[in-house]
Amino acid sequence: MQRTGILGAGQLGQMLALAGYPLGQRFVFLDTSGHPSADIGKTFVDPEGVELKRFVDEVDQVTFEFEHLPVALVRRLESLKPVYPSSRALEVCQNRGLEKSLFSQLNIPTPDYHLVESADALAKAAQDLGCGVQPVVVKTVTEGYDGKGQAVMRSVDEALDVWGRIGGRPLIVEAFVDFVREVSIIAVRGRHGETVFYPMAENQHVDGILRYSVAPLPNLEPSTQQQAETYIKALLEELNYVGVLTLELFQQADGRLLANEMAPRVHNSGHWTQNGAVTSQFENHIRAISGLPLGQTRAHSKTCMINLIGRTGDVQQLLQEPDLHLHLYGKEDRPGRKLGHINLIAEDWKTLLRRVEQISQLLPDAPTPQFTFES
Amino acid sequence: MQRTGILGAGQLGQMLALAGYPLGQRFVFLDTSGHPSADIGKTFVDPEGVELKRFVDEVDQVTFEFEHLPVALVRRLESLKPVYPSSRALEVCQNRGLEKSLFSQLNIPTPDYHLVESADALAKAAQDLGCGVQPVVVKTVTEGYDGKGQAVMRSVDEALDVWGRIGGRPLIVEAFVDFVREVSIIAVRGRHGETVFYPMAENQHVDGILRYSVAPLPNLEPSTQQQAETYIKALLEELNYVGVLTLELFQQADGRLLANEMAPRVHNSGHWTQNGAVTSQFENHIRAISGLPLGQTRAHSKTCMINLIGRTGDVQQLLQEPDLHLHLYGKEDRPGRKLGHINLIAEDWKTLLRRVEQISQLLPDAPTPQFTFES
Repeated sequence: MQRTGILGAGQLGQMLALAGYPLGQRFVFLDTSGHPSADIGKTFVDPEGVELKRFVDEVDQVTFEFEHLPVALVRRLESLKPVYPSSRALEVCQNRGLEKSLFSQLNIPTPDYHLVESADALAKAAQDLGCGVQPVVVKTVTEGYDGKGQAVMRSVDEALDVWGRIGGRPLIVEAFVDFVREVSIIAVRGRHGETVFYPMAENQHVDGILRYSVAPLPNLEPSTQQQAETYIKALLEELNYVGVLTLELFQQADGRLLANEMAPRVHNSGHWTQNGAVTSQFENHIRAISGLPLGQTRAHSKTCMINLIGRTGDVQQLLQEPDLHLHLYGKEDRPGRKLGHINLIAEDWKTLLRRVEQISQLLPDAPTPQFTFES
Repeated sequence: MQRTGILGAGQLGQMLALAGYPLGQRFVFLDTSGHPSADIGKTFVDPEGVELKRFVDEVDQVTFEFEHLPVALVRRLESLKPVYPSSRALEVCQNRGLEKSLFSQLNIPTPDYHLVESADALAKAAQDLGCGVQPVVVKTVTEGYDGKGQAVMRSVDEALDVWGRIGGRPLIVEAFVDFVREVSIIAVRGRHGETVFYPMAENQHVDGILRYSVAPLPNLEPSTQQQAETYIKALLEELNYVGVLTLELFQQADGRLLANEMAPRVHNSGHWTQNGAVTSQFENHIRAISGLPLGQTRAHSKTCMINLIGRTGDVQQLLQEPDLHLHLYGKEDRPGRKLGHINLIAEDWKTLLRRVEQISQLLPDAPTPQFTFES
């Protein structure tokens, strides 16, 4: 029986394990946060990394559920057991500077940007990128996720303030992008280089947190899907990547795509695959890192993933709803926390959009769903 | 967070837990066999039942994954925590005499039968049921499953021999049934009496072990499904049943159904629901015993469940096959052992039957699939 070690013990690790059991695998977790929630296999709670050796001894291979891990830790693991994706992929993905530079190297278009290391440089960069006429987005080069470590700057005068709030460390300043929508593509690459792609999703974020993902998209040109596949394939090959990789993109009014960021892991915008695709992103990640053939990525239903944030809502009421699949992570309610998600499926778009509207009204604090297509 | 205790820690318990995690539940197992394999939650390995109290203290409610449990044990549990299904359901289902008598009481037709407690009585019963002209089937009243504790008697002269092999305890002798096929219906009843039914499956057994289940059936009259629903609903209500109940039936040439036996649990002939129905039997069992609304039982695909018996076969090869969902239980190969199953799905019957034929040839020792319908 294969044992996979997972760095991180949150909901993504839990859903990887749930998908891996039927493949005959078992899971061991190394939690460095002190707050594991996966609760589906032996868990080393080890903020200091002192139990690394014991963790490694129990597993055949290692993967991770989130990218904010010390690269040195992952390198050390690589010297002991196969680790997928690699420390190089991790290093690139956790640093917006390296990431953007890789995008450029591979001719993947991105918003214009500058890297800055002072309030002064931030002001100059903002000016250069048209701040004042258009806002610019400022992000920490490392560490930020779910909208944390980000700021929107509308005037060059705000440079000192923004530097005070999220600076004191390297920042990236990005030009305003007049995008029509946010989309993502998820791809999987196996140990032998075989690659499969999921249909792209449209994602609705509020305050930097994903709220809705819809797939497959009715108003997506096949050429756009192909373009996104070309971009992510270049990344997979350059990084000799194994596992699930996610690329978030902006789509502009003329249809063109600009890469925003990538995540070296199963991704919230791919949760729809659990109930809408032949093989889920979780199962395919386990297949990939285990050297098993990859499963089909075809969507069999129209699906909308709805995140449950802060408060779960009335589970009794939700489970009365037809064609609704509930995925709770076993966490306590807390403002801003991802507690679970719903996958709502339908045979046609009209039904799906009507149902998403209905379900969103059952959820505490759910924003109004807004998509770029109509039924 | 609700904790469900499961008596038994094999693959059914494991699949219940896999379905229950996304509902926010966790699982604790009490194994009385000394050989737990579920491996997905705290497990008391407790052949003597001495840890019963500790097990009960950790859970909100109790269910079981197999019916060959001491009724006294389940009664004791009932005095401590809610147990679903009840000890009465268990008692009836583990005794073919009580079961047949309940069928009769509820006007559910069964093959003619006699209960016997000696070789002499066995010979007389066999004679009375036409043995010699037709074979009769002899089964132990308790304990038998997967073809164990069963014999086919072709002549009254064999009575002494059969009594020697499986007797020495009460036996049931059943008249030969000239059936066209074996079918089963699975129903779920919630805590408040609400009931849902899955589409019936056609089952192919070899040597008493299920090998293939297909659902939903293309050649099933709606009236037959309704008849089966009427029968199982009568059982559910009489037993004030909560959870999944399975009723296995023989269908005769004239279409009529004869009840064979029932199982007070999720059932191998319902594994197809994991990938072919909106809500799996496992999720619906957890919903039912937890007082949650029941999920839809509609089939969304044509599905064939293929058991992996004795040897798993080449997993690499199997996972290359499209529309194939693998479910391994994490057990070592052993002759006659259920190691896992495959759910093969298709949009039409022609494709499904062709694919089942192909896949069966990849499996070691798989019998030729034979169904009562053609594509």
